Amino acid sequence: MSLLWLDGEVRFTNFQPFDLRDRGLLLGDGVFDTMLVVNHTPLWKDEHEKRMRTAAHALGILFDQSKLDTAISAVLERVTLPDNELRNPMLHVLRLTLTRGVAQRGLATEGTTPSLLATLEPFDQGLIGSEVRLRTSKIRRNPTSPTAHHKTLSYLDNILAAREAAAQSADDALLLNTHGHVCCASTANVFLVEGEKLITAPLSDGVLPGIVRDVILREAKSLGLKAEERNIEPVELLAADSVFLTNSLRLIRPVTELDGKSLGDGDTVALLALLKEKIHQQTGANLAIA
Amino acid sequence: MSLLWLDGEVRFTNFQPFDLRDRGLLLGDGVFDTMLVVNHTPLWKDEHEKRMRTAAHALGILFDQSKLDTAISAVLERVTLPDNELRNPMLHVLRLTLTRGVAQRGLATEGTTPSLLATLEPFDQGLIGSEVRLRTSKIRRNPTSPTAHHKTLSYLDNILAAREAAAQSADDALLLNTHGHVCCASTANVFLVEGEKLITAPLSDGVLPGIVRDVILREAKSLGLKAEERNIEPVELLAADSVFLTNSLRLIRPVTELDGKSLGDGDTVALLALLKEKIHQQTGANLAIA
Repeated sequence: MSLLWLDGEVRFTNFQPFDLRDRGLLLGDGVFDTMLVVNHTPLWKDEHEKRMRTAAHALGILFDQSKLDTAISAVLERVTLPDNELRNPMLHVLRLTLTRGVAQRGLATEGTTPSLLATLEPFDQGLIGSEVRLRTSKIRRNPTSPTAHHKTLSYLDNILAAREAAAQSADDALLLNTHGHVCCASTANVFLVEGEKLITAPLSDGVLPGIVRDVILREAKSLGLKAEERNIEPVELLAADSVFLTNSLRLIRPVTELDGKSLGDGDTVALLALLKEKIHQQTGANLAIA
Repeated sequence: MSLLWLDGEVRFTNFQPFDLRDRGLLLGDGVFDTMLVVNHTPLWKDEHEKRMRTAAHALGILFDQSKLDTAISAVLERVTLPDNELRNPMLHVLRLTLTRGVAQRGLATEGTTPSLLATLEPFDQGLIGSEVRLRTSKIRRNPTSPTAHHKTLSYLDNILAAREAAAQSADDALLLNTHGHVCCASTANVFLVEGEKLITAPLSDGVLPGIVRDVILREAKSLGLKAEERNIEPVELLAADSVFLTNSLRLIRPVTELDGKSLGDGDTVALLALLKEKIHQQTGANLAIA
């Protein structure tokens, strides 16, 4: 079950009248963002909105901040009312989808009015922190493509990389970029720890600017780690003390295997504790995750 | 105005109840194809269906040939009835869209039922054969991405390349691939003529297998041309006798300029005559295009 905000109204079903000429549906022409919602409070809301605004600008899609805030408030208010089965879970995921809207046939983008959707559904706490076995994908990230830098509706490479990994009994794909550098997983940033160095790929390599990636980079010092953004060769993952993934929903996950080879012990306890503290500051909640 | 086939029925409006969790809308997870329809007969229908089937297989989406044929027949039958304003134009464009359908949140693809849409709308004959000024895009084609080889709903790179070109007063973008070889325009294949050689990029460079591209390659011999598929350096376009684009709707268009520099005289008369003959064979119609 999920809540949907569309055209100014909150609804309890996703089956709605919609103009099927919408460019989001026909051409992947739009952006999205997802936030973890803890006790009805979205985490790092300003950062997510800022990222979405940047993405919309890159595509030339009008970003209406007040409409977005109206949608978010309406969904979060509705879920707190006592008469719905969505109210109880402590964790939800809020997804915002902004498309270019309806246009004439072809690629031209003039005179369109964006469509905005917001959805809220329960999020399974068991997904947070679980171990990951990665498999290197044949699909490479393309740093010249805006789809590598922004969270866009043209998300197929990530889907197919994840399918490829699943077909090989891995949990997720490791994507290199077209220069052969380590980029990311299908929906997460990749970090490695080498001694006191915390290393992740620079955005210019074709990496999504992850919100949790940013938090970790900013706060590394407080854990005695020196953060570095630089090109990473795949072989470095095998030699690292630990490798982990970050994203906004599953927060932080240790990587235990790459292409069938065991990796470092993946100790992410201190980093997870840091994130839990940040979440407590924002929501007052103590996430019961190890 | 357009006709829409959805869920077994032909409709005269695109505003329809639709499950907004559809992966086509949320993640660009699907494929499409477009055919030019002349006198109510789609051109190269078998070739388009075969290409779409190949694309669906690459994505792991079930391709139901009989459902597709039902949709196409229903739309084409409906448009021939006397009571609709869509009946009269000689040219239409038929678009088929196949998405992975509705799935749970996340990238996993299990247990989905594909959604199929077919739309028919008039096509402006004036778009066929018009001259093109190209501008080289900063966005490169990525040969490792399935989106470079199949006509998928994750189409954003093409849209943004076309926008970039339009912002520089060009008609379309020239896309190189990540190795710097000439690939294609935003929605068309690129050919050059050098003496008796007709040259286009190989599919392995990250090129969509265009239906008209294929026709031209197959029939080149009959025009005294020797067809070659090989890597093309950008500088070769400036030196060529002529450069032209092909696609299924606008058929063949001479390229007169690249990045502000004039190109060869772009004589495509014999090639256009060849296509007109092929179209006459399929539809009995004589297209009044120069």
